[in-house]
Amino acid sequence: MGISLGGHQYGKAENHIVRIYRDTPRHDIKDINVSTCLRGDFEAAYLTGDQSAVLPTDTQKQTAYSYAKEVGVDSIEEYSLALARHFVDDVKPVHAARVEVEEFGWERVLVDGSEHDHTWVRTGQEVRTAAITIEGEGAERREWVTGGLKDLVILKSTGSEFTGFMEDKYTRLQPTTDRVMATSLVATWRYAGTEADWNATYATIKSILTSTFATVHSLALQQTLFEMGKAVLEAVDGVVEVNLSAPNKHHFLYDLETFGVENNGEVFHADDRPYGLIQANVVRDDAPDAGSAWEKFSGLV
Amino acid sequence: MGISLGGHQYGKAENHIVRIYRDTPRHDIKDINVSTCLRGDFEAAYLTGDQSAVLPTDTQKQTAYSYAKEVGVDSIEEYSLALARHFVDDVKPVHAARVEVEEFGWERVLVDGSEHDHTWVRTGQEVRTAAITIEGEGAERREWVTGGLKDLVILKSTGSEFTGFMEDKYTRLQPTTDRVMATSLVATWRYAGTEADWNATYATIKSILTSTFATVHSLALQQTLFEMGKAVLEAVDGVVEVNLSAPNKHHFLYDLETFGVENNGEVFHADDRPYGLIQANVVRDDAPDAGSAWEKFSGLV
Amino acid sequence: MGISLGGHQYGKAENHIVRIYRDTPRHDIKDINVSTCLRGDFEAAYLTGDQSAVLPTDTQKQTAYSYAKEVGVDSIEEYSLALARHFVDDVKPVHAARVEVEEFGWERVLVDGSEHDHTWVRTGQEVRTAAITIEGEGAERREWVTGGLKDLVILKSTGSEFTGFMEDKYTRLQPTTDRVMATSLVATWRYAGTEADWNATYATIKSILTSTFATVHSLALQQTLFEMGKAVLEAVDGVVEVNLSAPNKHHFLYDLETFGVENNGEVFHADDRPYGLIQANVVRDDAPDAGSAWEKFSGLV
Amino acid sequence: MGISLGGHQYGKAENHIVRIYRDTPRHDIKDINVSTCLRGDFEAAYLTGDQSAVLPTDTQKQTAYSYAKEVGVDSIEEYSLALARHFVDDVKPVHAARVEVEEFGWERVLVDGSEHDHTWVRTGQEVRTAAITIEGEGAERREWVTGGLKDLVILKSTGSEFTGFMEDKYTRLQPTTDRVMATSLVATWRYAGTEADWNATYATIKSILTSTFATVHSLALQQTLFEMGKAVLEAVDGVVEVNLSAPNKHHFLYDLETFGVENNGEVFHADDRPYGLIQANVVRDDAPDAGSAWEKFSGLV
Repeated sequence: MGISLGGHQYGKAENHIVRIYRDTPRHDIKDINVSTCLRGDFEAAYLTGDQSAVLPTDTQKQTAYSYAKEVGVDSIEEYSLALARHFVDDVKPVHAARVEVEEFGWERVLVDGSEHDHTWVRTGQEVRTAAITIEGEGAERREWVTGGLKDLVILKSTGSEFTGFMEDKYTRLQPTTDRVMATSLVATWRYAGTEADWNATYATIKSILTSTFATVHSLALQQTLFEMGKAVLEAVDGVVEVNLSAPNKHHFLYDLETFGVENNGEVFHADDRPYGLIQANVVRDDAPDAGSAWEKFSGLV
Repeated sequence: MGISLGGHQYGKAENHIVRIYRDTPRHDIKDINVSTCLRGDFEAAYLTGDQSAVLPTDTQKQTAYSYAKEVGVDSIEEYSLALARHFVDDVKPVHAARVEVEEFGWERVLVDGSEHDHTWVRTGQEVRTAAITIEGEGAERREWVTGGLKDLVILKSTGSEFTGFMEDKYTRLQPTTDRVMATSLVATWRYAGTEADWNATYATIKSILTSTFATVHSLALQQTLFEMGKAVLEAVDGVVEVNLSAPNKHHFLYDLETFGVENNGEVFHADDRPYGLIQANVVRDDAPDAGSAWEKFSGLV
Repeated sequence: MGISLGGHQYGKAENHIVRIYRDTPRHDIKDINVSTCLRGDFEAAYLTGDQSAVLPTDTQKQTAYSYAKEVGVDSIEEYSLALARHFVDDVKPVHAARVEVEEFGWERVLVDGSEHDHTWVRTGQEVRTAAITIEGEGAERREWVTGGLKDLVILKSTGSEFTGFMEDKYTRLQPTTDRVMATSLVATWRYAGTEADWNATYATIKSILTSTFATVHSLALQQTLFEMGKAVLEAVDGVVEVNLSAPNKHHFLYDLETFGVENNGEVFHADDRPYGLIQANVVRDDAPDAGSAWEKFSGLV
Repeated sequence: MGISLGGHQYGKAENHIVRIYRDTPRHDIKDINVSTCLRGDFEAAYLTGDQSAVLPTDTQKQTAYSYAKEVGVDSIEEYSLALARHFVDDVKPVHAARVEVEEFGWERVLVDGSEHDHTWVRTGQEVRTAAITIEGEGAERREWVTGGLKDLVILKSTGSEFTGFMEDKYTRLQPTTDRVMATSLVATWRYAGTEADWNATYATIKSILTSTFATVHSLALQQTLFEMGKAVLEAVDGVVEVNLSAPNKHHFLYDLETFGVENNGEVFHADDRPYGLIQANVVRDDAPDAGSAWEKFSGLV
């Protein structure tokens, strides 16, 4: 019976890099968490411990920091493309590279109503994400860009119902025509190409996601998610696919009746666990092949 | 040798209550995490297991949810005052009550440039806090209100130096006249009385804290903190004391020189641990006695 | 241009169930966190909001709790198999079900040297995991079982080197022939079939993983991982594939020289971020098809 | 109106130090998280930014790492006493120092039934803690040592009731004569002096706490806590005071009746929030003055 090495990849995770632009008195800040992952001819490292083809994760780290200056971080997509291309083009054993980035938002502090030049507070609203995958050389070259966001906590206090569902022996839930609906949205979207106005597109997509969540009268979180994905694809030409993962953060109407207190959808207990988890992919019919666009760094386990 | 029960207190921690106001089509939301703590004649529960004087933590929970409707949550200070007074006034064995609240911010989703009536996203910037302590009855009655915030992450990319410090055998740090200074601020402040425009005062204090952090040319985080506390006391009449706790979230200038890349304060590694931790109390000379205003629910351990 | 619903799935995540066995005075405890996920004919819920084919996540929750009694939790694999089969066999629109479980360990408290009958402390060492995927009916029926563990923090203080690696312009790391090697291991393994002595096999595999980490003289974490996976496959007949994901939790030798203090591999700074991340799959050459065994509940985003 | 600086302190928090003893082939490991805090003549740093009396937190860090070798970490109490004494004795402006340490447990990996010489897994059961406070010089010198533990999760599946409690308008809880009782214990204890067999005493106290939790038939968590504290004081001569803080981690009996399934204390939902929180101090009548033994590093906010 033989035993073989199957899939494998390695890299440096979570380089927390802060890039300050200070060319004028009005500074700018980019705050990113960068993970790099290499795939290629690294079998010998696993099978015999031979490191001669291995670019150490420490070197990947140094490169990630240096590229924050060499290339800059105008957008995380652009920075990541450059970094991933470097690994595939300049490091021989590397067949494919994946760069995953989280970006944390900051907004300028107001002093007497004016934006301060060099002081910010973290916005904390959502984390912007991007993941670039680059494979092959020459005619075999493929490049995929995905953008995304996570931890976008959104809630509507009406305009959501849940009725008409299947029942069985274990059914306990009552149908409702008016409930709180809330989620902590994770969304990722795939671009058709590798050129776009990344920052503007991000802002557009975030705005479509939140306003669609607000305006769709929801018959189920499933329906809301599909409408959100569809709205993005209808509005943004360069995007071909949207993935949505949404925990249904349950808000239970609190029973105050025995205290003689009326509760018409006004007081809720926000529960932590368990939560519903709804996931959907919405895709253009003519989307090009996704290839390994969705193969994550943490994807093997 | 005798062994006695010393200090003791008990309560229900972290009731996550969401209060929706829906009297008009334009709803409002208050999202709070409430902890209640009772102090008083509860020795028997500890010494003999006799529960006859014990108001169960479950009952405290029910009351906290019911008060979100009965009293409402216009401000967390007002809500907490009512809840704490109820425990001291209406539950005989209770000599003192403490209510601690965290409030999470939400902002309206924009749809075509207009604020939506019933959909919000979590702002996530900082958590607002309040802690009310009420003791005694009749002439012995004392009431303290503290407000606060935590997790306010703030950073300035220049205007901060650190030089002229004491040196000894273990000194390795180099003085610097230009560094990134960042913290995740925790601030609490004590009000002189129990009446104020709580929400407006909160906004004022937050604004003073952030703008002072921005505008003070910092010789040390210590100095910045003192100036922040002083600015609050100078501007807000009803506040008599400010406590500040600030981790110095170190941003290390990344060495890119050996790669032939210049780094003039542009690329930093944001480190997690260890961090400096600077704490200060700033107080009016004529502040009334703090009594047990600062005795926390988790204070005994 | 058409827009379609692509992949989709939904379920209830993180039901925290504690099952006590109390048939004799010597009780037993099983502490599990259960997530259920359904795949099938649920397009209408997304496309039109029609819930008639949707088994609510609340019903999935009720079933998960009830099965803890109806079936019991002798092993998480057995419990999950029964639960997943129920969803596929008894709920018509369900084509496939996935059940993911985490199990937290407890050990009996010792009283005067003897194990107590009904009191335990959490061991906290590692979390045991399992994931069952069941697809189709009749001749199309497929069932996959994977077991695993996570958060197994393991460290060796010598017997690890890292030398002979590739160098480039960004190389800063020095080779070392003696270092601390530590990781927080995530391992998952796939069984050939759906019958095994699950608890005994788990204990065997954990023991092989830890003892192999200890005894292999490591030339790289890659090599150690491969040897760990290989050792499992060589020793355990019913297991056909092992996935390993290992953060390289860096321990940096602390420079004490300028203080006149020698540090021969004795004092380290344990850093949080960034960390290396090494992943590998080790597989039998005759392993049956993995099908959707590795398609996670959180897999779409 | 004057504004003054009140209490203040500063230091370096969370130095994660790993100390390996490798004098023989059988290595030993100590894994600690160290925070140091200085109190003294530091007003000028706050008031004018003058750092001349300030020992930088970076220097405190260097000292903490160096002392892991110079003094060693036979016990966290001994290590911390040395470090705190150094700051008070050797750094002139320091009037008082506090050192707080967390220690993470490791146990040897077994290889063929034998303990391995240099490989361990994290036990993860509880975190051991210590806090040393040292004040003054000469005749004014005071030294306090407290030990402790946290995150000790303990559960009993019977032998716990809760009845006879006070009722009011908001009472909803039903009394019970048999419930699951669980907590994640935080305990701290104060030693009379500064010499003890620290590691043996720690083991003794942990054992007393867990076995008392097991064997006391509980009428309330309050009663169990008092008995735990009392048992420690009765058994351990050098300890004069015990503080206990115990979240009541609620396990709710799950209603399976409507599914036709009996649930006699066998299936529970383990809830996250809210939780009861019970705190008590148990003290010898002849305990010496606690002074600032309990004034924490994070104590001002």
